[in-house]
Amino acid sequence: MQFSISNSITLLERTPGVLKTLLLNLSDEWVHQNEGPQTFSPFDVLGHLIHGERTDWTVRAKIILTDGLKTPFTPYDRFAQYTESKDKTMNQLLDEFEQVRKENLQWLKSINLSVTDLEREGMHPALGKVTLQNLLAAWVAHDLTHIAQITRVLAKQYKDKMGPWTQYFRILQ
Amino acid sequence: MQFSISNSITLLERTPGVLKTLLLNLSDEWVHQNEGPQTFSPFDVLGHLIHGERTDWTVRAKIILTDGLKTPFTPYDRFAQYTESKDKTMNQLLDEFEQVRKENLQWLKSINLSVTDLEREGMHPALGKVTLQNLLAAWVAHDLTHIAQITRVLAKQYKDKMGPWTQYFRILQ
Repeated sequence: MQFSISNSITLLERTPGVLKTLLLNLSDEWVHQNEGPQTFSPFDVLGHLIHGERTDWTVRAKIILTDGLKTPFTPYDRFAQYTESKDKTMNQLLDEFEQVRKENLQWLKSINLSVTDLEREGMHPALGKVTLQNLLAAWVAHDLTHIAQITRVLAKQYKDKMGPWTQYFRILQ
Repeated sequence: MQFSISNSITLLERTPGVLKTLLLNLSDEWVHQNEGPQTFSPFDVLGHLIHGERTDWTVRAKIILTDGLKTPFTPYDRFAQYTESKDKTMNQLLDEFEQVRKENLQWLKSINLSVTDLEREGMHPALGKVTLQNLLAAWVAHDLTHIAQITRVLAKQYKDKMGPWTQYFRILQ
């Protein structure tokens, strides 16, 4: 698979709709379950995705494009959503994510990245040198794997309701 | 989490829309990739879900409700989609799944299952005795875990494009 800016944007554009279709108005007992201590519920994941839109992906892309390796990225706070999502509802988070993602993709489209731009480098605080292509590919994969996580967490809620069928679901073990 | 017929129907109703939002008009190079030999691509998963609608979930529910333990279920063919989806497009499969799921849920709602019905038993050809609740819970979890699988397969296509970030994605290893 070749990396493609346009296919990446297509996938990034779809995530808010996928999550809304899956989660809007779903009962609280479903969206607040997780997989045990220190794991994310679907509600936590939404907050995490919003925090990423606000402080991570495009912020870091801008650093790459303006400062290159000179300015290392700010470390990402994986737990910010525990305070930022407080007192919000899942429906609010779904709207917020849709809005902030839309703004970020408007920016991304507006700068008309070239293939050469994809090789421009930035400094990750833990991983070291990364390229803009690495960042965009990770952004796409981050969306997709968090959709996978949300659906796995939801499925686990029925793990002890499906009787012997549970042995056919390796992903839930 | 308690098992709930209405919450289960809600989740089952959403799956075709989730998959359409994610996959409609996505380029062929994305929807036909898999995770290696004998694994499913997103295209294969859609065919597998359609085959399940036609031959498995509601067919087995009807056997439970009419014959109970007397008539074991027919074994499920996990590879039927390789012939049934041949010459079809992903968009056709997305429409077909939406239609057949809609019909199956219309039937499920029409029979107004009671809580007592959920304890009625059937005979799985490999797993032995199962209840109608087991079957419905497995149907929901089957949808959700296949959405997880599809998004994981899509994400894997960018595994070698994200540079050092790949180590943060345990789900892709």
